[in-house]
Amino acid sequence: MATRKEVAELAGVSEATVSRVLNGVGPIKDATRERVMEAAARLGYQLNAVASSFARGLSGNIGVVLPHVPKVHLFSTYYFSEILSGIGEAVRTGGHGLLLLYRDPGQPFDYVSLFRTRRVDACLVLGASSLPDEEAGIRALAEEDVPFCVVDQRFGGLPVPAVIADHVSGSYVATRHLLASGHARIGFLNGSPQYSNSADRSQGYRMALTEEGIAWNEDIVYEGNYSRKSGYEAAARVAADFDRLDAVLCGNDRMAIGLVQGLKERGFRLPYDLPIVGYDNADASSLIDPPLTTVEVPFYEMGLRAASRLLSRLGGGAEDASAGLEVLPTRLVVRKSCKTSTPEAKESENE
Amino acid sequence: MATRKEVAELAGVSEATVSRVLNGVGPIKDATRERVMEAAARLGYQLNAVASSFARGLSGNIGVVLPHVPKVHLFSTYYFSEILSGIGEAVRTGGHGLLLLYRDPGQPFDYVSLFRTRRVDACLVLGASSLPDEEAGIRALAEEDVPFCVVDQRFGGLPVPAVIADHVSGSYVATRHLLASGHARIGFLNGSPQYSNSADRSQGYRMALTEEGIAWNEDIVYEGNYSRKSGYEAAARVAADFDRLDAVLCGNDRMAIGLVQGLKERGFRLPYDLPIVGYDNADASSLIDPPLTTVEVPFYEMGLRAASRLLSRLGGGAEDASAGLEVLPTRLVVRKSCKTSTPEAKESENE
Repeated sequence: MATRKEVAELAGVSEATVSRVLNGVGPIKDATRERVMEAAARLGYQLNAVASSFARGLSGNIGVVLPHVPKVHLFSTYYFSEILSGIGEAVRTGGHGLLLLYRDPGQPFDYVSLFRTRRVDACLVLGASSLPDEEAGIRALAEEDVPFCVVDQRFGGLPVPAVIADHVSGSYVATRHLLASGHARIGFLNGSPQYSNSADRSQGYRMALTEEGIAWNEDIVYEGNYSRKSGYEAAARVAADFDRLDAVLCGNDRMAIGLVQGLKERGFRLPYDLPIVGYDNADASSLIDPPLTTVEVPFYEMGLRAASRLLSRLGGGAEDASAGLEVLPTRLVVRKSCKTSTPEAKESENE
Repeated sequence: MATRKEVAELAGVSEATVSRVLNGVGPIKDATRERVMEAAARLGYQLNAVASSFARGLSGNIGVVLPHVPKVHLFSTYYFSEILSGIGEAVRTGGHGLLLLYRDPGQPFDYVSLFRTRRVDACLVLGASSLPDEEAGIRALAEEDVPFCVVDQRFGGLPVPAVIADHVSGSYVATRHLLASGHARIGFLNGSPQYSNSADRSQGYRMALTEEGIAWNEDIVYEGNYSRKSGYEAAARVAADFDRLDAVLCGNDRMAIGLVQGLKERGFRLPYDLPIVGYDNADASSLIDPPLTTVEVPFYEMGLRAASRLLSRLGGGAEDASAGLEVLPTRLVVRKSCKTSTPEAKESENE
């Protein structure tokens, strides 16, 4: 790709003149304009989407607002890394930049100023929750006529543009799978209900139990915070409840991996003593022993789709989904962590 | 945190007036200024680092330039995710945004324009290589008096500010570890030499061999591209060379994990048939079977350090390291993947 400097040299003008010509800004002599355009054409130098954004007074940046969680290597979590990879894939071709900004979870965040100060042309919100101050920020944003999209969070009755996954169906199918294997007493290690994905997962779990006439038993419902550590810590409670549990469904793979580790340290032989089901289909879920049965969530596609919607709107395209809620499908992935065969059967499998 | 809007309402002025007062821009009546300052104080509204950047004509953004690799979920690689997490930790407190921008590997990239167009105040370069067009872009950047820092790449004689890790020592120590366990014929699956970390790793490997009077044998040196797939594909060559290999050192854990998978599919019993050493100490390295002996690289700290240097310079602090090369230490982590005991010994260990 040719640089602006090369175009300027070939045309015999300054770089600033090249910019003025190509952005259509300011008075320029026809002869100069022709020389610049000819040089740009010869060198294959083209105005990209961002250059044309600048010409329209835009920043060329898509904002991505993330929660700051102390001590967590956010980009190293499957959840955020996959959503960001999808967003990155959507923006990279047009030359837009991704402006990552941190907010404090549970605190107000002034999204509107990002637009008013022209720091971003559009905004994606990741890791949002329904805590009142967070929801107020989203509500204020929704009142402005600006392109934004929330990923993996919906807000009850608020008409907020969002791309989410079908977590109701995801946990419903996972719970049905355990029930069909003869497990009636299914424990549930979920994340905090302030996230709509937690609440949706809880709903799917209850739906599946209700269909089988099994009452919700809060004694075997555990709450973690989606970290591996919280799963590891939950192992103590799960081990104490062992005589009233047939299996455990987890709200994400990180907690499931921590739970597996904690149970193994207590002498559990997995999956034979206690089938465990994860959620997300993170890379690590297939690497651990036993490999996790889990629910695949299309995080990459969610990020890609959310960013594509914004770019379509910025490009002037019809974006009828802009005010809507899109729900992408989830899918059960069966692996060994919920096999119910005995260790002896396992050994013969390996031969 | 109060918003500018709330300050404006309490002071009975427009939001634009609040901005002009707080940024010290434009003529303002003393009475108005006092009302705004009083309202801001009462509401706890403060100018943050970014607001003061804007007042000085800066963007408030730190650029992070990343290679775009088709089909790779970049943020989901341990390498990039950890460096980015470290960078994020450094910038989050000051309110700076991280502006992620993609470049095509091997192609020229116009870093200088990012500064000239005031899109960024400082710039971090990740995943750079010594390919001529890439190096030319870095050289042009180095000629400007702007804050930038390269992470995990050095450029021969060019005085480029960079934070790297001691990969010479990392692979030297890993190779010594294998030699000390009685393995003389050590294969090496490395990444492309266009990355200085590959070249440094190769140097450490050769140093350790030379010390033991072992000649470099290019027949057992393999090249991958740091992907799991390239490690998986290398398994065919490694298996074919099995009778002249005592062990294999890999340039990163992803390739090592692919190699382990490929060898297992060919019936290898690991680690007994062939000890494997990874590199990076990625999360996955401890999850797979066998857990990998590997070299820990402080990617998080490298990102944190590189970003901190830039922020220090932006903040007007003394930044004597700005033109320098910083080298952070690496460390060997010993796990089961290079144990040399027999399967029988393993079984007794497990009891």
